[in-house]
Amino acid sequence: MSKVTQSTIQVGELATGQALTIPLYDIKGTDSAAPSVYIQANVHGAEVQGNAVIYQLMNLLEGYDVLGDIRFAPLANPLGINQKSGEFTLGRFDPITGVNWNREYFDHNIDLATWYAEHQHLADDVLFQAYRATLIESCQARLKQPFGITTGHRLAVSLQSMAHKADIVLDLHTGPKSCKHLYCPEYDIDAARFFSIPYTLVIPNSFGGAMDEAAFCPWWQLSDFAAKQGRVFAVPVSAFTLELASQERIDLADALIDAKGILAYLSHRGVIREKVEPADMARFGCYLRDYKKFHAPKAGLIEYCAAVGQALDAGQPLVNILRMDLYGTDDAHQVISLPMDCVPILHFASASVHQGTELYKVMTNVFRL
Amino acid sequence: MSKVTQSTIQVGELATGQALTIPLYDIKGTDSAAPSVYIQANVHGAEVQGNAVIYQLMNLLEGYDVLGDIRFAPLANPLGINQKSGEFTLGRFDPITGVNWNREYFDHNIDLATWYAEHQHLADDVLFQAYRATLIESCQARLKQPFGITTGHRLAVSLQSMAHKADIVLDLHTGPKSCKHLYCPEYDIDAARFFSIPYTLVIPNSFGGAMDEAAFCPWWQLSDFAAKQGRVFAVPVSAFTLELASQERIDLADALIDAKGILAYLSHRGVIREKVEPADMARFGCYLRDYKKFHAPKAGLIEYCAAVGQALDAGQPLVNILRMDLYGTDDAHQVISLPMDCVPILHFASASVHQGTELYKVMTNVFRL
Amino acid sequence: MSKVTQSTIQVGELATGQALTIPLYDIKGTDSAAPSVYIQANVHGAEVQGNAVIYQLMNLLEGYDVLGDIRFAPLANPLGINQKSGEFTLGRFDPITGVNWNREYFDHNIDLATWYAEHQHLADDVLFQAYRATLIESCQARLKQPFGITTGHRLAVSLQSMAHKADIVLDLHTGPKSCKHLYCPEYDIDAARFFSIPYTLVIPNSFGGAMDEAAFCPWWQLSDFAAKQGRVFAVPVSAFTLELASQERIDLADALIDAKGILAYLSHRGVIREKVEPADMARFGCYLRDYKKFHAPKAGLIEYCAAVGQALDAGQPLVNILRMDLYGTDDAHQVISLPMDCVPILHFASASVHQGTELYKVMTNVFRL
Amino acid sequence: MSKVTQSTIQVGELATGQALTIPLYDIKGTDSAAPSVYIQANVHGAEVQGNAVIYQLMNLLEGYDVLGDIRFAPLANPLGINQKSGEFTLGRFDPITGVNWNREYFDHNIDLATWYAEHQHLADDVLFQAYRATLIESCQARLKQPFGITTGHRLAVSLQSMAHKADIVLDLHTGPKSCKHLYCPEYDIDAARFFSIPYTLVIPNSFGGAMDEAAFCPWWQLSDFAAKQGRVFAVPVSAFTLELASQERIDLADALIDAKGILAYLSHRGVIREKVEPADMARFGCYLRDYKKFHAPKAGLIEYCAAVGQALDAGQPLVNILRMDLYGTDDAHQVISLPMDCVPILHFASASVHQGTELYKVMTNVFRL
Repeated sequence: MSKVTQSTIQVGELATGQALTIPLYDIKGTDSAAPSVYIQANVHGAEVQGNAVIYQLMNLLEGYDVLGDIRFAPLANPLGINQKSGEFTLGRFDPITGVNWNREYFDHNIDLATWYAEHQHLADDVLFQAYRATLIESCQARLKQPFGITTGHRLAVSLQSMAHKADIVLDLHTGPKSCKHLYCPEYDIDAARFFSIPYTLVIPNSFGGAMDEAAFCPWWQLSDFAAKQGRVFAVPVSAFTLELASQERIDLADALIDAKGILAYLSHRGVIREKVEPADMARFGCYLRDYKKFHAPKAGLIEYCAAVGQALDAGQPLVNILRMDLYGTDDAHQVISLPMDCVPILHFASASVHQGTELYKVMTNVFRL
Repeated sequence: MSKVTQSTIQVGELATGQALTIPLYDIKGTDSAAPSVYIQANVHGAEVQGNAVIYQLMNLLEGYDVLGDIRFAPLANPLGINQKSGEFTLGRFDPITGVNWNREYFDHNIDLATWYAEHQHLADDVLFQAYRATLIESCQARLKQPFGITTGHRLAVSLQSMAHKADIVLDLHTGPKSCKHLYCPEYDIDAARFFSIPYTLVIPNSFGGAMDEAAFCPWWQLSDFAAKQGRVFAVPVSAFTLELASQERIDLADALIDAKGILAYLSHRGVIREKVEPADMARFGCYLRDYKKFHAPKAGLIEYCAAVGQALDAGQPLVNILRMDLYGTDDAHQVISLPMDCVPILHFASASVHQGTELYKVMTNVFRL
Repeated sequence: MSKVTQSTIQVGELATGQALTIPLYDIKGTDSAAPSVYIQANVHGAEVQGNAVIYQLMNLLEGYDVLGDIRFAPLANPLGINQKSGEFTLGRFDPITGVNWNREYFDHNIDLATWYAEHQHLADDVLFQAYRATLIESCQARLKQPFGITTGHRLAVSLQSMAHKADIVLDLHTGPKSCKHLYCPEYDIDAARFFSIPYTLVIPNSFGGAMDEAAFCPWWQLSDFAAKQGRVFAVPVSAFTLELASQERIDLADALIDAKGILAYLSHRGVIREKVEPADMARFGCYLRDYKKFHAPKAGLIEYCAAVGQALDAGQPLVNILRMDLYGTDDAHQVISLPMDCVPILHFASASVHQGTELYKVMTNVFRL
Repeated sequence: MSKVTQSTIQVGELATGQALTIPLYDIKGTDSAAPSVYIQANVHGAEVQGNAVIYQLMNLLEGYDVLGDIRFAPLANPLGINQKSGEFTLGRFDPITGVNWNREYFDHNIDLATWYAEHQHLADDVLFQAYRATLIESCQARLKQPFGITTGHRLAVSLQSMAHKADIVLDLHTGPKSCKHLYCPEYDIDAARFFSIPYTLVIPNSFGGAMDEAAFCPWWQLSDFAAKQGRVFAVPVSAFTLELASQERIDLADALIDAKGILAYLSHRGVIREKVEPADMARFGCYLRDYKKFHAPKAGLIEYCAAVGQALDAGQPLVNILRMDLYGTDDAHQVISLPMDCVPILHFASASVHQGTELYKVMTNVFRL
């Protein structure tokens, strides 16, 4: 029933002069009171599966009654997506500066004391509207810095400017070799029950440069600040990073599953009129402080023994390290395990590593959601 | 019963001055009449599984009576193996020159008319010994060129110099995302029945710079030349490239299977005293001229539909191409198939491709071996 | 007086779907009998100065009476130009395959015996026209291969298809750190007196995959073949590679000098009506067989002592090699020189090198042109 | 008179198992009361000139009476130095993670209130000794984290552990295309008069991950904290980053000039007995807040017009931007200038840039030191 219209946004310019553009797809909602949505995918160049999810979701939505405005920004980092090195996409960081494309979003550093003093007389919805306008203007001003801004920051702030217009922001990523997992701010933990994602990282309100944080932190801060002034309201904006399994992979059937999970969340939030039930599945949570990175204690060839997304008991093999230079010694083949129960969430993509390479990320102290 | 001794060979020097070395493992055979063997792995930096096969094979051989000398050179390209770009190993070509590490071997271009005229009076085994000495001396001279040689050529000629000493040369590689397959020279097709490898490419006698060709071409040429002079003998040297499934993967259990396949071949050739039977499995062949590369007819996101190593009928889906910039048009999602039956052998490693990227290599006109 | 019109040609498609396009500028000549010209620049991504030369030349030509058609293709490799790695352009080879962008041109391998037998009755100019059509059709067929062709080959054949339409082909390159030099086929050595380029490499008629060879080899072959049949004519097509000093450098003033040199050649060939004299300067030649590559005999930090473009006597310092790991030994600081007089033409771009890195290319047995 | 002894430190392990080692050179001082010194070079892989300065300085010191202990760590990042991409060293960031090698140092985050309460009874020199021990132990603990640490952090903390032992820390870097400049903490501004470096950036006490900050920040913090408690002492440790002109360049003669500048500073500080006068030259300063980065306002080919190290008046050409896709329009050739007087300190290394590339860093509000 809904109709998708296309446009493009320019986010930069290549050395040859060609415009860096992102295709945008908009569905106009029929109820201006319904929440608006912004969904982007592929900010990291190798993390393509989110595009397939957007494709399936747009297809699905054609059969629903869409109440809130929805904007899709697939292929959201054309420079990163097109940057190949050998047989893989080198799309995690700007190849010139090394800066992670998902750490380039803008920290507004709004002076809340001043801003709130000026706007506290406003009713909630008008207050939110004013705050939203402030965030968007701040982005626009940033893009017009007299000495310019970096390539990656221009991209990020252009995307952020669109995200700030929405009530719900979804940033579709993947891990290297990964099971599905969700980054979810603590205040919004109920949302985790809707997506088709078994593992959820519960994250605090601190800005590290990522899109989800860029979208929700200013609102969480506003909510916090107001609460201290005695005015209580829920954080008005929801933002999540969905990690949809492994990079360098397109799987249309699996994309449909995640599209339905997103649809269930949008249904719950009233973005579509129809009721869509979430998948019936076990879901687990872990606090960010319990999310551990395991680095290669020594260099070598790696057999990844632990399957991602499956509980691993303390003492069970995580990796085998093979050292062909040490054949005939005890160090030629070493089995590495962890001293606590965990769920391996993702592992490194290459099977030969320098000492210190991040081999696995594991959840510990996992709890049922 | 056999004993492995370790040494190292220096094949270059890094900018910081550190030596580029390769570990060598030798088993001294008990019968000087038995064929000698040279096995190397990991000349392409991301193709690590051959090391695991060498590891399993050395372990196995400790329980056998080894008649012929065997040299193992795992981790045969330290510069390539250690060269990372993003989360993957950039080990297919020299990062400075772009030259494929497996196209750097030396073409001796021996003047056979002259050489044969000088040596034709020799008995076969002495003739072969003389020819072998000529090849090794040619390598040594190459390494001492007054104006020097390139980094990659130094590595290759150093390896080649060791390979020329052996009667049997195995170069262990992998494909990107690949099933197991064997490069086998036409004259040696019987050998393909011993390895644990289902698909064999039958290759002609032409030098393209690869190790297997570098090892067998000079001997095939000698055999051809002698035949034209009326002296007939079998090509005295066997050389194969084994493609052991996918790159960036260590699988010790699968490595054991391939180690046993190699053992079966070595048993057949009399390198070990014990009889080791090859795996009972279907094996197929394809002439190189029937091995087809399919290039992306357009750019886009790729879902690889066809499984490697499984027959695909004409008209069945090979890949889906997803074009998120074209949503709403017929070109948003295109299914690509081939007009003939084939067996997909390998496909590209990344799921987003420029136009022209080699998507699949497929065998056509496949026959039972 | 002349007027430049713009168009574009599509030579590929990026993963995101964006077209890879090259801007084309055409000047329509007023005399159809005058030779036509094709000039391209920047096929290697870091070699940008040729664009500045085209810019200056197009500016200059607006003041001349242009008789022959001229096509300019600046920024001729958009994928290579836009491919950055760290602070530099990684534009010498396809980052996926490693293949040098200037070794991807098509070798038509025309069966001259058959072709000539069919066309020998034609008068020279009609014969040439037929041959030209054959070359262009061969390119077009190549672009339509049923299994597709590689990204780099598509680019090259698209460019080649334009080049084959011209009588004069100029491919503008640079070296890494380099003085100006010209690749000139032996039969066309007189042309070297017109460009503003002091050093000329005289190259034979053999196809190695580069544009200049792709343009002149088929014609040299035709001329050779016809001569053997008793029909003598000059090679009808001229093609040169101009190496315009160092990569990663735009110098508009120097570009004007080279634009004037090209203008002098075009004037000599009758492409413009006006007489333009070549620069009064010493010009030197060297046969390709006397053009030597010097590879780092050891690794280390390199001080490039010998200036490019200036004669260096035998025994004079070429490079200093500093080895900080060997301080206190005789090898900490070594001075390397060559045993013969030479003219260093170019040197490597980085000051730290692995063993085997090509440090310098030098001309020996240099003669006055 | 002084004698240099060599050792090595292992800072990691490559995938092939080879140790990553750094050569260390020590001069034992004759007076234990004299300040000790730590000098490292080449943490960024392409910034090689610091090694040449160390080479010249060690040579010079052999003729001096050295009172304080001096440790030299040239080639301080073997992984970064050996990482080539095309013809250049890709040594600014970890190729796997993108993290700048000079942003990996450890922020101890010492709880000064607690620490000072426990140690305030100590006399200054014992207090400093205790603090130094705390910093070094903190590094050692960091290296032994149970889940491991990253490759880059291991390198950095290993270097930092050595730096913390010294009273004077010099980190030798270069810019891309750069004039010589010094990063100098505000409290140590007098030191800037001794080095052979014309331009000095005066930096505040804030930790951004670089070596100089890692070395002086904890001491500045201690000094600040004590002052607030009424105990005043000068910051006991001096640390500077010297940017010794351009990367990818070895110039032994110029290295001698900088070695003499360092010698003058060491003489001033009493590290050597002899009096060495600083070079007689103009020296200028600029506060970090007045150090401006100019980003490419549009993409294109860049002619860098402004020479580094030379004052540029407001409105004078900084760069020419050439846009070959826009020939015939006003945008084909644009001259860019800045609205204020400045001194360009460094510019980007490549001559073709995407929009947003940092083209120049310039000092504004420059003052005489």
